[in-house]
Amino acid sequence: MSIQDEMRQVKLASPKLAAADGETRNRALQAVSEALQAEREAIFEANREDMEQAEQDGVPGPILKRLKFDEGKLRDVIAGINDLIHMPDPLFQTQLARELDEGLVLKRVTCPIGVIGVIFEARPDALVQISALCIKSGNCVILKGGSEALRSNKKLFTTIYEAVLKAGLPENCMMQLEARSEISELLECHASVDLLIPRGSNAFVQYIMDHTKIPVMGHADGICHIYVDKDADLDKAVPIIFDAKTQYVSACNAVETLLVHHDIAGDLMPRLKAALDEKQVELRGSRAIAELIDCEAATERDDATEYLDYILSVKTVSDIQEAIDHINYYGSHHTDCIVTENAAAAERFMDLVDSAGVYQNCSTRFADGYRYGFGAEVGISTGKLHARGPVGLEGLLSYKYKLYGQGQIVADYASGSKTFCFRDL
Amino acid sequence: MSIQDEMRQVKLASPKLAAADGETRNRALQAVSEALQAEREAIFEANREDMEQAEQDGVPGPILKRLKFDEGKLRDVIAGINDLIHMPDPLFQTQLARELDEGLVLKRVTCPIGVIGVIFEARPDALVQISALCIKSGNCVILKGGSEALRSNKKLFTTIYEAVLKAGLPENCMMQLEARSEISELLECHASVDLLIPRGSNAFVQYIMDHTKIPVMGHADGICHIYVDKDADLDKAVPIIFDAKTQYVSACNAVETLLVHHDIAGDLMPRLKAALDEKQVELRGSRAIAELIDCEAATERDDATEYLDYILSVKTVSDIQEAIDHINYYGSHHTDCIVTENAAAAERFMDLVDSAGVYQNCSTRFADGYRYGFGAEVGISTGKLHARGPVGLEGLLSYKYKLYGQGQIVADYASGSKTFCFRDL
Repeated sequence: MSIQDEMRQVKLASPKLAAADGETRNRALQAVSEALQAEREAIFEANREDMEQAEQDGVPGPILKRLKFDEGKLRDVIAGINDLIHMPDPLFQTQLARELDEGLVLKRVTCPIGVIGVIFEARPDALVQISALCIKSGNCVILKGGSEALRSNKKLFTTIYEAVLKAGLPENCMMQLEARSEISELLECHASVDLLIPRGSNAFVQYIMDHTKIPVMGHADGICHIYVDKDADLDKAVPIIFDAKTQYVSACNAVETLLVHHDIAGDLMPRLKAALDEKQVELRGSRAIAELIDCEAATERDDATEYLDYILSVKTVSDIQEAIDHINYYGSHHTDCIVTENAAAAERFMDLVDSAGVYQNCSTRFADGYRYGFGAEVGISTGKLHARGPVGLEGLLSYKYKLYGQGQIVADYASGSKTFCFRDL
Repeated sequence: MSIQDEMRQVKLASPKLAAADGETRNRALQAVSEALQAEREAIFEANREDMEQAEQDGVPGPILKRLKFDEGKLRDVIAGINDLIHMPDPLFQTQLARELDEGLVLKRVTCPIGVIGVIFEARPDALVQISALCIKSGNCVILKGGSEALRSNKKLFTTIYEAVLKAGLPENCMMQLEARSEISELLECHASVDLLIPRGSNAFVQYIMDHTKIPVMGHADGICHIYVDKDADLDKAVPIIFDAKTQYVSACNAVETLLVHHDIAGDLMPRLKAALDEKQVELRGSRAIAELIDCEAATERDDATEYLDYILSVKTVSDIQEAIDHINYYGSHHTDCIVTENAAAAERFMDLVDSAGVYQNCSTRFADGYRYGFGAEVGISTGKLHARGPVGLEGLLSYKYKLYGQGQIVADYASGSKTFCFRDL
């Protein structure tokens, strides 16, 4: 069977999975949790083989760390599955119930999106998390993980898929792609796939967005800003900037550009430079900044660059409006922060900056599903349609309108012989 | 200034409009209502010129009827604006408020999508409705109406835009395109336009979807089905099918394919044919149907055709599952109905059919924002992301996450020196 035909089978399975009750889906999650425990040694063995191969191939340390699937990570994913089991069923929830006329009742009820394709980095724990979120939300899933995790993913997928089938979920409700070449087939399957969630480098996500008709949820760039207002408390500003830049430089929610009100730049910059020097952060400053501290010269290109590295561009602004305009123009609408003690300035910034996350006095690194209390996330969206920001269970839902009648026809309402009452129930 | 530059100005206006308070937006709606009254004669005159031109050009009757903007239509749109004024403000609504830790508060707050491009048919009243929905929801709008309404639209747009500026909305919050050639420029402006809503023929909507990177909300096909179950009440089935087919044949929610349980086909078909003969509806039947009544022969092509005409394809199915599978395969996920007295069969159909609207015992023609009690609609979406089905005010909203801190940094939570509390407020 071709990949395209297999995906069509997944599409055909999706209404069946959508109709599976919450108890069945929870039973499937329970079965997954037990199967992962039962198969632990074989999973660890497959992961050891992946790790050996990756080490031979000279894969860098941080990627090896993500690739590793050990006792600790197994415990974490199983804890995550147990959390999901105890969450209320997101499906079949009535969002609206309205009597349109006597005996004509409209209900808006949550349902899954259908078939979700997720392309993710070489992290075996991500495969488990994504699968669990999709099972809980009644979505069929097509998984393509990073190739370094091939053996681990194969074993994890087989373990999970067999467990959910035994628990009563429909055949073909999950599918795994293994070869990188299969991604292009996935991108063409807009008849079978309702949503794509690509994770990974900007260039990769942008490639996906440019080469498919399937709706894509996610983000390419993450150019996050911190604006230090004239009414900032510098005792807060310095640690916030230090954390947002250095706590994990390669994250999409790390700060890349610092905007400083010119009244406060003389106080802030020497203190900030001293702090960032500890981590050898390279500062690229505008002319006004270069007059205050020793730094590289920034160009306009820096304004539009996501470094993902120990580099920070800094410029002064003459007022809050200039900061807002800069962020809306150069930013990626991900997460942007104002440091200020002035509540009115904070509200103005938060209302006018057009980003998924707008923060006052805290690190941009908080932009994350776990830290928002969503349990887990499938990604972060910088789009403004459907889900925005960190996307958890709720972002994997759609709804349908159910209308219950007793023979009503539109002609009676068009002629005026009947009229709508619109009474919310 | 080029069209592209003008659209960039609209994009720049969008955060300002997003921050305008509800009172200002309602004052703008009030000003629009008054200006339309004040300019009524000039508007009617522009419309008379459009009507004369259209008649000379041989534009067909039903389109002329939509093009006309008279006393009655003015009254209707003004009533619609007044309804909107009295609706609660959809913006700045807190959807989630959660303390993540002491002094670290997350809020999810509704906000507009930003800049919405609407391409619509030659109906001047649609221009007023769409503008009013966008003003209420704080969205900037780029309007391109059907060319037959050029003069009416120009006068209406100027009247509305001048009124909202005087009421305090930001400059460039609305823009009108006049030439058809400007549509292609609109399609390329993905940096300035957040959402496109095209209305019109399937071919036109499909063209838009295929030629832009901007997210598109709407529907191309509307292949709606009615399935008459073996437990159907034929006294309901016949009028429902008659209404769904003939009440307005060129609507997207008109029925195009009828599926009949074979046990009941012998009773239903002669009665149905007698009713539909009144309106000269052409029936195209499968072989089993052709044995029961006099009809044309249907081919598989009929299964996938939206006639928008007095034509109905009919086939028998051996059970409800066959009907569900047919609808999910050939349908357009718009609106599909089961006629049955059996509640379990109805629930099964409504859970398994993957459409925006799933109905029991009523006409598919009810799929409409006004009939759902939404006040007005900008369109009907057959996609499953963001809004689905008839799209009213709510479908024009997004949200942003606001995080209020007091200097919190992620390093403290990563090291375990602080922990999240996650307390919903």
